[in-house]
Amino acid sequence: MRHTPIDQQRAWCALAEHAAGMGRRHLRNLFAEQPGRFETFGRRAAGLTLDLSKQRWSETTLELLLDLAREAGVPEAIRGLMAGERVNRSEDRPALHTALRLPPEASLVVDGEDLVPGVHATLERMATMVERFHAGQWRGATGRAIRDVVNLGVGGSDLGPLMVTHALADYRPEGIHRVDVHFASTMDGSQLADYLTRLNPETTLFVLSSKSFTTIDTLSNARTARDWLKARLMDGHPEGVDTDLIMRQHFIGVSASPEKMADWGIAPDHQLEFWEWVGGRYSLWGAIGLPIALVVGMDRFRELLAGAHAMDRHFSEAPLADNLPVLLALAGIWNVNFLDIRAHSILPYDGRLEYFAAYLEQLEMESNGKSVTHEGHQVDYSTCPVLWGQLGPNAQHAFYQLLHQGTQAVECDFIAPRVRYDDVEDPATRDHLMAQHRLTLANCFAQSRVLMLGDDAIEDEGPRPEYKHYRGNQPSSTLLLDRLTPATLGALIALYEHKVFVQATIWDINPFDQWGVELGKKIAGETQRILEHHRGLDGMDDSTRGLIEAVWRAEAEGET
Amino acid sequence: MRHTPIDQQRAWCALAEHAAGMGRRHLRNLFAEQPGRFETFGRRAAGLTLDLSKQRWSETTLELLLDLAREAGVPEAIRGLMAGERVNRSEDRPALHTALRLPPEASLVVDGEDLVPGVHATLERMATMVERFHAGQWRGATGRAIRDVVNLGVGGSDLGPLMVTHALADYRPEGIHRVDVHFASTMDGSQLADYLTRLNPETTLFVLSSKSFTTIDTLSNARTARDWLKARLMDGHPEGVDTDLIMRQHFIGVSASPEKMADWGIAPDHQLEFWEWVGGRYSLWGAIGLPIALVVGMDRFRELLAGAHAMDRHFSEAPLADNLPVLLALAGIWNVNFLDIRAHSILPYDGRLEYFAAYLEQLEMESNGKSVTHEGHQVDYSTCPVLWGQLGPNAQHAFYQLLHQGTQAVECDFIAPRVRYDDVEDPATRDHLMAQHRLTLANCFAQSRVLMLGDDAIEDEGPRPEYKHYRGNQPSSTLLLDRLTPATLGALIALYEHKVFVQATIWDINPFDQWGVELGKKIAGETQRILEHHRGLDGMDDSTRGLIEAVWRAEAEGET
Repeated sequence: MRHTPIDQQRAWCALAEHAAGMGRRHLRNLFAEQPGRFETFGRRAAGLTLDLSKQRWSETTLELLLDLAREAGVPEAIRGLMAGERVNRSEDRPALHTALRLPPEASLVVDGEDLVPGVHATLERMATMVERFHAGQWRGATGRAIRDVVNLGVGGSDLGPLMVTHALADYRPEGIHRVDVHFASTMDGSQLADYLTRLNPETTLFVLSSKSFTTIDTLSNARTARDWLKARLMDGHPEGVDTDLIMRQHFIGVSASPEKMADWGIAPDHQLEFWEWVGGRYSLWGAIGLPIALVVGMDRFRELLAGAHAMDRHFSEAPLADNLPVLLALAGIWNVNFLDIRAHSILPYDGRLEYFAAYLEQLEMESNGKSVTHEGHQVDYSTCPVLWGQLGPNAQHAFYQLLHQGTQAVECDFIAPRVRYDDVEDPATRDHLMAQHRLTLANCFAQSRVLMLGDDAIEDEGPRPEYKHYRGNQPSSTLLLDRLTPATLGALIALYEHKVFVQATIWDINPFDQWGVELGKKIAGETQRILEHHRGLDGMDDSTRGLIEAVWRAEAEGET
Repeated sequence: MRHTPIDQQRAWCALAEHAAGMGRRHLRNLFAEQPGRFETFGRRAAGLTLDLSKQRWSETTLELLLDLAREAGVPEAIRGLMAGERVNRSEDRPALHTALRLPPEASLVVDGEDLVPGVHATLERMATMVERFHAGQWRGATGRAIRDVVNLGVGGSDLGPLMVTHALADYRPEGIHRVDVHFASTMDGSQLADYLTRLNPETTLFVLSSKSFTTIDTLSNARTARDWLKARLMDGHPEGVDTDLIMRQHFIGVSASPEKMADWGIAPDHQLEFWEWVGGRYSLWGAIGLPIALVVGMDRFRELLAGAHAMDRHFSEAPLADNLPVLLALAGIWNVNFLDIRAHSILPYDGRLEYFAAYLEQLEMESNGKSVTHEGHQVDYSTCPVLWGQLGPNAQHAFYQLLHQGTQAVECDFIAPRVRYDDVEDPATRDHLMAQHRLTLANCFAQSRVLMLGDDAIEDEGPRPEYKHYRGNQPSSTLLLDRLTPATLGALIALYEHKVFVQATIWDINPFDQWGVELGKKIAGETQRILEHHRGLDGMDDSTRGLIEAVWRAEAEGET
């Protein structure tokens, strides 16, 4: 238990004092004064190279930040996380996503039970399912092999699988019965309605993913899917297709609640269960990852786990000063808390990472968008910054203008694979695509350089108008993947998961709960009843009343 | 010419003084003290209802902000924009996207020339092309009708058409030869490579969209597409398909440079031209909108223009105090400059608006991510905030945690249609989907309410732990569309375009240039040459050198 807030402790105060001077330094001077910054601030682990030399810091800064990490108990916190201690204190349970990627020969005993056998039993069940699909043996109610799988889930049951299946689409195995995977998440039915016009109900299966199995977004879509299957499959077969067979052959459930899955009608052997100790936004490593395994196969899925596990080991074993998640976290703390940089942009230079920024938006902002310490005190310092992003090359044509010449300070993460396309068979196509990759890397390095140096990135061409000046001094990190593989992607995701944990430890907040989303659900239910029954406005504020009445008027106009 | 910076003028100073008091007020008290806020701060125009009552302001605040708008010359600026004055001063030209949506009977004379006939001539050429596609008469080199169109473009040549075609997909006309439209923008070839594995070259056409026709991202993809067509179409036809025919029948160019299109090989009658006075991020209203017209047809495309024109007229004619773009702009100014709220989230509650936030990221941050006034002075105040977003219901499961319980202040825009799905034919499906829409609206209203009121949104349930508290007081605007149609979508986009212009006027910056992206292009070219030729590292900073060497090492390892 910590009683003095972290921002009143020695290391934080030393940093605040240090920042008064460093905050005025320009990156171009830091580079001019200190040769060898890449060596000093570069680290490697698990197939990733992390360059932190373009952070607005010095070796002294980093020393002070490492002091802060020690003072905040980061080493002990890492051990506690990995050992299955109840780090999620508000919900009184451990956060054991790292257990999902332990190898079969490992053992992790929590409350007297070794978790590893259960984890691998689930992986085996997934493997059996995936094999059935890939052998063309998973058949719909009319006997045809399933060709399309639609994942119905939102938040953690959507963003992780969506991001990874997109990133690893090149790793689809050959020689199998192909299954295409689609994602429908929005509660208004938009995405699902689109799929339903295009897919064949005879060969379409739905995966219902929801940790609680009470997520109304997902259950609304599931009901629409069920009605669609029944209507379409029973229409075309006047003698009638058995409803039970539809429910059995066209739905898989993934949840921590087998009772609720059974109530909904998911066949017991088509349920995949996971555990209360896996947070939704940390859940792609197990049953929630089924769509990933359906695309890349179980071997590749296990490589993804192995890559994450390699990062877990690095995180547990590497000294703080060489520890990638710790260093990435400290860079963020330095920017948010000492340089007052409240925005963070995620910029992958590889089209396969199209959904990575959206994935991190959840991982970071849902985990660390908190302001109360473990002991229940309101913090007096910033926690999670606003985090957003886009594929870097596209963002160059969209919002880089603000990064280069706007008034907001922003920290950026540049992410790219070192090599790509060298395995393309046709030589002409290979050369062409490798040139496109080189062009992409060139843009990645050039942009971080201009953001750092500003005007100094070009030789002086004589006087220029003010609007052609670039102030530079925007800090960034660059992450190079040896190449984008299941293993390095696993390591990359685990790197950010642990970064979030280290920051939460320093800020003394709980990254594993999400109480902030609870109240909205309750109020939404109440609002829905008012909208539907046309009464109950009395307790509402004036704005809500005006908006609801505007809807009622529009509905009435529609009816006349 | 203005010589005293806006933040040293009377209205700004009055606002700063006023903000010292207002900044400490909580929204829940503002609502408690002032009944009728929805009436006071709600406005309607062009099928949109804008509720600004949940901004942290009073009538006095709004009066002072309107003073600021007048002092900054907003009314004169609006007249100048619409009249075709050279408002884009750094590039010495007008910004005439509003001319693209003038009706045929209108006239707008700029430099002695009426622009309207030219605009409508282009629309007629688009209409002729679209009709050919929809009649199944646009045939590929082997004589088969084109079925798939891939738009190759990035930034303004991608985000606008992508966002609108997605939003209006329900408006696809019936009884025509269907053409599916796809978008490939990333310079690394990822998206395009995926399409090329799935599409049939015989029935695929590419639209090359680039204002300058020098955008390397787009031209790289175009070259890949051309090689693919040639290889695949000539392979399958041993007698040989005519190369000229491939170039002619499988490519359309959209650009302000007919010469460059011709050089690339675009047939003259398959070129659509637009004008230097249309900025890329304001260009979806003309030839760049071809993919939109291919999906919804020209009648609907003209409705989109008419909706935007209705907003243009409102913007020109309505008094400042009732002017939607002006009010939305002032709310933003109040938040950024006087309440120090540096982030802005765009949250549509309609899956069809999936790309609207990405579209606005470009529109706002590329336009107003500036820090130099028209006269060349560095500003001392914040300009454009960081803007990001996601479909609201999905973001509830992703980053709303930070909005409710984080430490960052964020302004939010909630956007939803009042009615939806009431035109679905089957009664059971209709009821079901209308319930999903009602659920979505309920969530929209509930979230903005909780963000405003915090804990006060619920009846007191007795003591709660600190982590279940919600501080509220996050300001938001709510925009209701009567329904989502081509016309209201046009009005919505025009609303934000004009909002951006009003803010730029007050900040005294040029929203129509983008010098901040120029230097990066130059440095990228230099970096690419170094990466390719393995020399030239000498002038590089230590970080760039380290990163480039890491790539070279990886390439060498790949070769051994």
